[in-house]
Amino acid sequence: MVGETVVTVVGNLTDDPDLRSTPSGDAVTHFTVASTPRTFDRQSNEWRDADTLFLRCSAWRQTAEHVARSLARGTRVIVQGRLHQRTYENREGEKRTVIELEVLEVGPSLRYADAAVDRIPRVGVPGGTLFDTAPPTPDDARGNPAGEGGAPRRDSSAHPF
Amino acid sequence: MVGETVVTVVGNLTDDPDLRSTPSGDAVTHFTVASTPRTFDRQSNEWRDADTLFLRCSAWRQTAEHVARSLARGTRVIVQGRLHQRTYENREGEKRTVIELEVLEVGPSLRYADAAVDRIPRVGVPGGTLFDTAPPTPDDARGNPAGEGGAPRRDSSAHPF
Amino acid sequence: MVGETVVTVVGNLTDDPDLRSTPSGDAVTHFTVASTPRTFDRQSNEWRDADTLFLRCSAWRQTAEHVARSLARGTRVIVQGRLHQRTYENREGEKRTVIELEVLEVGPSLRYADAAVDRIPRVGVPGGTLFDTAPPTPDDARGNPAGEGGAPRRDSSAHPF
Amino acid sequence: MVGETVVTVVGNLTDDPDLRSTPSGDAVTHFTVASTPRTFDRQSNEWRDADTLFLRCSAWRQTAEHVARSLARGTRVIVQGRLHQRTYENREGEKRTVIELEVLEVGPSLRYADAAVDRIPRVGVPGGTLFDTAPPTPDDARGNPAGEGGAPRRDSSAHPF
Repeated sequence: MVGETVVTVVGNLTDDPDLRSTPSGDAVTHFTVASTPRTFDRQSNEWRDADTLFLRCSAWRQTAEHVARSLARGTRVIVQGRLHQRTYENREGEKRTVIELEVLEVGPSLRYADAAVDRIPRVGVPGGTLFDTAPPTPDDARGNPAGEGGAPRRDSSAHPF
Repeated sequence: MVGETVVTVVGNLTDDPDLRSTPSGDAVTHFTVASTPRTFDRQSNEWRDADTLFLRCSAWRQTAEHVARSLARGTRVIVQGRLHQRTYENREGEKRTVIELEVLEVGPSLRYADAAVDRIPRVGVPGGTLFDTAPPTPDDARGNPAGEGGAPRRDSSAHPF
Repeated sequence: MVGETVVTVVGNLTDDPDLRSTPSGDAVTHFTVASTPRTFDRQSNEWRDADTLFLRCSAWRQTAEHVARSLARGTRVIVQGRLHQRTYENREGEKRTVIELEVLEVGPSLRYADAAVDRIPRVGVPGGTLFDTAPPTPDDARGNPAGEGGAPRRDSSAHPF
Repeated sequence: MVGETVVTVVGNLTDDPDLRSTPSGDAVTHFTVASTPRTFDRQSNEWRDADTLFLRCSAWRQTAEHVARSLARGTRVIVQGRLHQRTYENREGEKRTVIELEVLEVGPSLRYADAAVDRIPRVGVPGGTLFDTAPPTPDDARGNPAGEGGAPRRDSSAHPF
C-alpha cells in the first residue's frame, strides 16, 4: 500500500489482547494502547501527565497469534501501524466513525522489562523460502529480510478492511 | 528535547548487542539494525529486496541493560529513536560523519516470534512513585504512563551526547 | 512535551481553513485533511483507492494565520502533528470521543504545485526574539534553528557533505 | 516499496536546491536540510540548541522541478522521505557510506512564512494524465487522492534508484 498514514505509538495495553477468528479463518487480535505524554510545567518545575490517547489496534494472522500469547494487560509496547478510519452503526442505528491502528509491527518495550524471544520455526518444506506458496501482501513483506522466519501464508484472500 | 528527528526502524540485529559502561557509570548498549525494504517487480511478478539500510543504535541506562539481556544477533526488532549525527576522527586522523539512532524505545518484533515479557520490579521504597528521587529527563518520561514500572534514575547528569 | 504520538499525514484539504480566535486571544485555525492510500491489485494489474482517512487538524498562533492565508480547499499538504484525543458532548448530551491532529508543522506539498514562499518579518522590538512576550511551548521551539524565523544560517560550517 | 524506513524532517535548506538531469532524462534535485533540536536546560531555565542534523535529500521528476522553482537557501521545509544508504568511492578510491533521504513529499513550512500555492496544470493532451510523459514510481502515487493530479498508473517500470 502506498500513501498510507503510518504512526508509531508507545504505551500500555489497557486489557489482555482479544484473539478471534474471522469467518474466512484469519486470526485477528484486538487490543488498545494507552499512551500518555507529559509536559514539563515550568511554574511548578514538575512533569505533568497530559491527556491520554487510547488507540484500538488490530493485528492479523501470525502477528495476531504472537500478540495473544506474548502480551497482557499493562504490558508496555511499541506499535507501528497504519491509521485507519472505520464507520459503523451502533445499536441505536447511528453512524459512528472511529480511527484505529492496523498493526504492521508490534513488540514489548524493553524500557522497563526484559523479554525472552522465542522464534517460531518456519512452517514448510526444508529449504523452503518465505514466500513459497503464496504471494506476499505488502505487510507480510514489510522489513522482512531474506533468511528471517515467517511461515508461508496459507490465506492471502481479501484483506478484511 | 523538541524539534528532534524521530524515526522508527524495523529490522534484524546484525550482531549481539554490545553493553558497555561510560566513564560516568552509565550503561550504554550499541547494536546495528539491518532493514531491507522490498519492491514488487511487476515484470517478473516477484518481490525483490532493495538496498539494506544499516543503522547503528545506542540505548542507555535501563534500556541498555534490557537490550543486552533480551536481544541477540538476528532478532527482529522495532526501534524508535532520534536521528543523531556524530563526527569523529578515524585512525588516520580524518574526520568522518555518521548518522546514528539514539534509542527511545526498542522491542523484539512479534511478527515471527513470541516473547515472554519479564517486568523488572521497580527499585525504591514501597509506594514510591516513578520519579521519586530524581528529575526525569525527557526520554525517561517518554510515553510512560502512571503505574508503569521504571526505577528511579540514579543518575540524571548530563546526557552524554 | 515528551511521549507524544507524532504522525505525518499527506492529503488534501476538504475545505478552506477556518481561522478563529480563542477567548484568550490566540489564533487557531481548523482544517481537515483527506488522505487516500492506494493498493495495487495484482489480479486486475491496477492501483485502487483504499479507504480515505479524514483527520481534523488545529494549528495555533502564527502557524494558524499562515495556514489561513496560504491554504485553500483542495490544496495538497504535508502535516506533522500530535495525535490528540478529545471528548465532548454533542447536542443530545452524548459523550463523543474524536482523535484529532494538533499541528506542529504544515506546508503545501510541492508534488503537483509550485509555491512562492513569503517570509513574514518578525514582529517585535528590534533585536527582539521570538519568545519575548510569551513563554515558548514545545512546538514553538520545534526544529527552530538558531537565528530564528528560518533566516539563512550564517554558520553552516562543518557541513559534512 | 514496503518495509522502507520513512522519516519526516523539519529544518532549513543550507543552500539553493540543485536541479540536474539524469542520463535517462529524469529531473533530480538535491538539497540539504539542517535540523536543530533544542533541549530545555532547567538549571539556566533556557532552551539550548542541540547538535544539528544535516540530511541530504533527493527529489525526483515533477517534485524535483517544483522544489527547484519554489525553495531557496534558508527556506524552512517539511520533508518526508525514505532513509537510503548509499556507498560510493571518493577521489582517493576509498569507500564511503552515507545515509540520505529520498523525498516522498516536501513543502515549505508555514510556521514563519506564508506561501502562495500555484497548482501546475497537468501536462498532456486533453484528458491526458499526469504521468503521460514519464514513468511513475510508487511514490508518485503516495497519498494521492482522487481528483488530485495522479491518474491511474500505466507504467511501473524500473525505479531509478
